[in-house]
Amino acid sequence: MSVFTKVSLEEAAQWVKQHYSIGRVVNLRGILSGIENTNFFLDTDHGAFVLTLFEKLTASELPFYLDLMAHLSSHGVPVPAPIKKLDDRFLGELNGKPAAIVSRIPGSPTAKPTGKHAHLVGEQLAHMHLAGQSFEGHLENLRGKTWWASASEEIYSFLSESDSELLRSELAYQHEFGTQLIPRGPIHGDLFRDNVLFHESRVGGFIDFYFACVDAWVYDVAITANDWCIKEDGSMDNVNLRALLDGYASIRQFTPAEVEVWPTMLRAGALRFWVSRLYDLHLPRPGELTHAHDPEPFKRILQRHRAHPQTFGS
Amino acid sequence: MSVFTKVSLEEAAQWVKQHYSIGRVVNLRGILSGIENTNFFLDTDHGAFVLTLFEKLTASELPFYLDLMAHLSSHGVPVPAPIKKLDDRFLGELNGKPAAIVSRIPGSPTAKPTGKHAHLVGEQLAHMHLAGQSFEGHLENLRGKTWWASASEEIYSFLSESDSELLRSELAYQHEFGTQLIPRGPIHGDLFRDNVLFHESRVGGFIDFYFACVDAWVYDVAITANDWCIKEDGSMDNVNLRALLDGYASIRQFTPAEVEVWPTMLRAGALRFWVSRLYDLHLPRPGELTHAHDPEPFKRILQRHRAHPQTFGS
Repeated sequence: MSVFTKVSLEEAAQWVKQHYSIGRVVNLRGILSGIENTNFFLDTDHGAFVLTLFEKLTASELPFYLDLMAHLSSHGVPVPAPIKKLDDRFLGELNGKPAAIVSRIPGSPTAKPTGKHAHLVGEQLAHMHLAGQSFEGHLENLRGKTWWASASEEIYSFLSESDSELLRSELAYQHEFGTQLIPRGPIHGDLFRDNVLFHESRVGGFIDFYFACVDAWVYDVAITANDWCIKEDGSMDNVNLRALLDGYASIRQFTPAEVEVWPTMLRAGALRFWVSRLYDLHLPRPGELTHAHDPEPFKRILQRHRAHPQTFGS
Repeated sequence: MSVFTKVSLEEAAQWVKQHYSIGRVVNLRGILSGIENTNFFLDTDHGAFVLTLFEKLTASELPFYLDLMAHLSSHGVPVPAPIKKLDDRFLGELNGKPAAIVSRIPGSPTAKPTGKHAHLVGEQLAHMHLAGQSFEGHLENLRGKTWWASASEEIYSFLSESDSELLRSELAYQHEFGTQLIPRGPIHGDLFRDNVLFHESRVGGFIDFYFACVDAWVYDVAITANDWCIKEDGSMDNVNLRALLDGYASIRQFTPAEVEVWPTMLRAGALRFWVSRLYDLHLPRPGELTHAHDPEPFKRILQRHRAHPQTFGS
């Protein structure tokens, strides 16, 4: 939310002039969202970009994200395209932090998506999955099962007995489940409404790939559904859900195995964000200024999915 | 000029659906310019693209052009970005021809450039040269000295005695000149007014890279100057020339060696297009429907450069 590291217009201008082929910097404006990085809108006399200083991600993780965005962009999937420096690398250093510039995606998010929006997102997500098939990079899901288990150990002491019981029960259930046999590839992993920009009634682009990893495609769809297709009371919005799944299937058909694991994936997606939000709430990182997201909605979504297993598209 | 190979909307739609991640084709329109390839504006429900079927260029030359465009685009230089197919390759085959899809550059050319236009083009050309430094592909100039000499042998019989004399004399002069010691790299090689699109008072992009090669950077500037900075009577437009050179030098300074060869490069650039236009006029390829460009203006430009050697920026 936050501009953790300050950058002046002069610093940015000098850095861009020295390292890039994108013209002269004419404007720089901090972006007050994002909880992992410091982001700026950076305009040059040639175009609009985003400058990101990486506050926590390490140089060993960053190439996966940047290479994946470059790969998807080269396939025509609308995502921020990382810009290469004169040394032909994406990653540089600015004010002591790893830093990169990406193209700026036009458009803005929608807070209240209609079925039309959900359909478009489903189509684009399927295109992203298919285009990602030829990507050679690999990164395990750093917010996957292993992390759920270890993070939960740290937060049980903050939870009510019933919440602890719910968490233990769901972890045990998910632990039994293997997703190895369902189609996998690069996934976005965090395709919430604020990470999809709409422009001129189409998807301007997907942004914020810093939870991307290699995992089950249908898990990515479930994470998306848990944000785009949930009513305020925690029940499914079946119009949007039908539209999301139809949009996806119009580009890439689901396999029978994916249909079978769908209810489990919806629960896994809810669990993942319930745990991470509990973790951020109870164990904030030192010096962190972000306001943590409320974990409760994802607890309710999880409870709902457990009580009313969602068969595919029903 | 020409749509040499026909493609129906249905053929394009099917081909795109099978091989790409760019949405559904909604429109296809032949482009009546370009003398080497068949080009179509191709719109999908996700964006605007150009489909090119290569009529003459071979699969051994094409990777240089496509890889160079992809390289420059990844550096933020506004050029058409080739779109990768699902198999992670740029090049496919459609209706028996090598074919590729590139992003569509916004904007339109200017027939009567001002100094402001020339300055912008100079800046962008310098950025392109610098960004191209890290490009690893290589292609000799297929319209370079060797070609001038061999093509000239084929056209002398069509020329008047005085034109033959001018051609022989200039070839002999250029033959003496070595450009090995001046900075080289990927060049556009054909940056005429119709290959630069302006959009919202900036350079929307450079297009048509199918004469690109590795050659002297200052030769690329001279080719550009011979089109952007020439009045109708064949004399230099010194306002535009000053603007072009200043724009270029604001991004990348010319070396003393480049300044020294400038008059020779202007002559070389004029010679190259005089010869190629004579060749296309007198030796049209079988079945070619294009109207050849008039060689005379480049003869006059060459004569002018010979009579009034243009010192740098004067």
